Amino acid sequence: MNVKNYMASLGSEARNASRAMAKASTEQKNSALTACVEQLVLAKEQILAANAIDLERGKSNGLDAALLDRLALTDERFDAMLEGLSQVAALADPIAEISDMKYMPSGIQVGKMRVPLGVIGIIYESRPNVTVEAASLCLKSGNATILRGGSEAINANQAIAACIATALESVGLPSAAVQVVETTDREAVGELITMPEYVDVIVPRGGKGLIERISRDASVPVIKHLDGICHVYIDDKADLDKAEAIALNAKTHRYGTCNTMETLLVAKNAAADILPRLAACYAEKGVELRGCAETVAILPQAVAATEEDWMTEYLAPVLSIKVVEGMDEAIVHINQYSSQHTDAIVTEDYTRARRFLREVDSSSVMINASTRFADGFEYGLGAEIGISTDKIHARGPVGLEGLTSQKYVVFGDGHVRR
Amino acid sequence: MNVKNYMASLGSEARNASRAMAKASTEQKNSALTACVEQLVLAKEQILAANAIDLERGKSNGLDAALLDRLALTDERFDAMLEGLSQVAALADPIAEISDMKYMPSGIQVGKMRVPLGVIGIIYESRPNVTVEAASLCLKSGNATILRGGSEAINANQAIAACIATALESVGLPSAAVQVVETTDREAVGELITMPEYVDVIVPRGGKGLIERISRDASVPVIKHLDGICHVYIDDKADLDKAEAIALNAKTHRYGTCNTMETLLVAKNAAADILPRLAACYAEKGVELRGCAETVAILPQAVAATEEDWMTEYLAPVLSIKVVEGMDEAIVHINQYSSQHTDAIVTEDYTRARRFLREVDSSSVMINASTRFADGFEYGLGAEIGISTDKIHARGPVGLEGLTSQKYVVFGDGHVRR
Repeated sequence: MNVKNYMASLGSEARNASRAMAKASTEQKNSALTACVEQLVLAKEQILAANAIDLERGKSNGLDAALLDRLALTDERFDAMLEGLSQVAALADPIAEISDMKYMPSGIQVGKMRVPLGVIGIIYESRPNVTVEAASLCLKSGNATILRGGSEAINANQAIAACIATALESVGLPSAAVQVVETTDREAVGELITMPEYVDVIVPRGGKGLIERISRDASVPVIKHLDGICHVYIDDKADLDKAEAIALNAKTHRYGTCNTMETLLVAKNAAADILPRLAACYAEKGVELRGCAETVAILPQAVAATEEDWMTEYLAPVLSIKVVEGMDEAIVHINQYSSQHTDAIVTEDYTRARRFLREVDSSSVMINASTRFADGFEYGLGAEIGISTDKIHARGPVGLEGLTSQKYVVFGDGHVRR
Repeated sequence: MNVKNYMASLGSEARNASRAMAKASTEQKNSALTACVEQLVLAKEQILAANAIDLERGKSNGLDAALLDRLALTDERFDAMLEGLSQVAALADPIAEISDMKYMPSGIQVGKMRVPLGVIGIIYESRPNVTVEAASLCLKSGNATILRGGSEAINANQAIAACIATALESVGLPSAAVQVVETTDREAVGELITMPEYVDVIVPRGGKGLIERISRDASVPVIKHLDGICHVYIDDKADLDKAEAIALNAKTHRYGTCNTMETLLVAKNAAADILPRLAACYAEKGVELRGCAETVAILPQAVAATEEDWMTEYLAPVLSIKVVEGMDEAIVHINQYSSQHTDAIVTEDYTRARRFLREVDSSSVMINASTRFADGFEYGLGAEIGISTDKIHARGPVGLEGLTSQKYVVFGDGHVRR
């Protein structure tokens, strides 16, 4: 069977399975998640052995250390995978919730019912634990899913997929509700993202290159974010202790995450006070500073920033710093250079806080809090399949609700339109 | 200037204007709508004269009668346009509404703020009143908009656009917040739907051919519905008086609308009782009946339906009828042939009603009510820019809220992530 036919057959089975998933009871879905835990525990040895084969092959194919690390299923990661399944089972079921039911002047009652999207395609790299994570969120939200992991993780992914299939069948749900693409042929991705008749939305997880390629070529909607160029603006009405704590945490809590601050904006009137304090903290952590002319005048240890710096997601201990006149210039800079992921202001001024909140056009806008909070768990979503910087459909951290839609429901008693 | 550059310049101006619109106050937006009414009243003669030129040209170009009718701005339609503006001004402003604000275990407060989508491109045919209707909804929802009307309506649209621009400027809003494309070159549409840097969403209004073409070629998200193949299923537990009223209203209230019933499904045990009653009503209205074998056995006046009939949106006094075993077969038929617009059940059975509501995968699902109720006004949205049968973003009738998104807002007091 060629790749096109193979993917169409996966798609068609997923579409059928999605109908069963849409009407599956909460108990059935939770039982499936619990059964998954059991199956994974039973198959732990085989899964780790499959992962060992992937790692061995990765090494001989010359994968770099970071990729090999992400590929490795340690005991700790395996347990986290099981824990994640239990957490998703414990979340409230979003499906079929009816809201806003109101009587209209005509006498009909109108409301909305939450429904699954249908079939979700997930495209990801290396980390085999994503297979379980993504499958569990799609399952709980009543969707069928087609998972396309990286070719480097194919053996572990297949072993995990077998467990999920067994778990689904054990509770009477179709095993096609979670399918892992078995071919490593890259054409499979091209097919997956251009089958709107079978796939309702694509969630790509991985590097910017992968996501850009998918967004460009997909004929199916994509839930995605490309960059995390996040800003913290320290206002001249900021409490400088809070400013120091937030700017330090936003940059140094973790360097490689998308909600890490990449550019610090400081009001002119606060710069001389706060920048030296911050520079001392950053020096301790080994963060390289790149600043505008005014920054460099205050902090001689900073190198001169170029235009390129304002557009760069370093994902590393590097920070660009710009001194601005005040909040207006900060907002202009943010709306120009931000990737619309997460931006924060530090201020005690009520009116500025209120304006910043409204005028910054990003998926998360924060007052006096670290950008690192932009996260599905921290926002109380219980889990996260990704973060969306798009405005259509889901925006910000995407949990179960982002994998659903709503339909209108109408109750009448023989009502007709006049 | 070539079309590509012209459209890019419209796009860039719209993007800038969208920032001003996003922070415009409710009062400013309402004043703009009121000023629009005043400007249109002042310019009524010029607008009707421009429309007369369009009509004249349309006639000499051989436009058909239906198109000429849609193109004509009568006094009544002009007044309806003014009335629509006042209604939109009276609607609540959806923008910047904050909801679901909750304290998290970390101490931060997290909620959602409703925000405009940004720039909305509207592509429509003939009816010049759509210019005002679409502009007013985009304006009230804090968006900038680029309107591309049909070339046959260009003179009236330009005259209306001038009024809107004057109105916007009179309240201190940028006139680029509502721009009407001035060229009738078809390349302009191709550009409009492939400028994601300037346009956030496209709403096509018009025939299926137009919408299909746009959906296929757009690189910007499209809010749309293609077909309205709506079903009414009469259950054997139906109250036959309600069934008769609903099936008659859903088919004959208006033939050319997307929420008109095209296929009637009847439970086997109810067919002999209800079909002859309905056939008498339909005969009175001159509705042609096309039925399955069982239908034809009961109603000899019906012609035999073909497979094609189940997939056809007649938009005419034609109805296809199928006798089914019961609700299960009805749901299977609907999920296969429905355009996922609006489908209804008539039944007094609680359990079946509950199942139908959950298992039918359409943007509106109704119990004991006519499909004709699927409409923004009837649903209490106050207005409607279109009906979406997609699952991503807006679904069902799309009012102001469908032209918005939500961002997360986070309040802290110096909070950092542990």
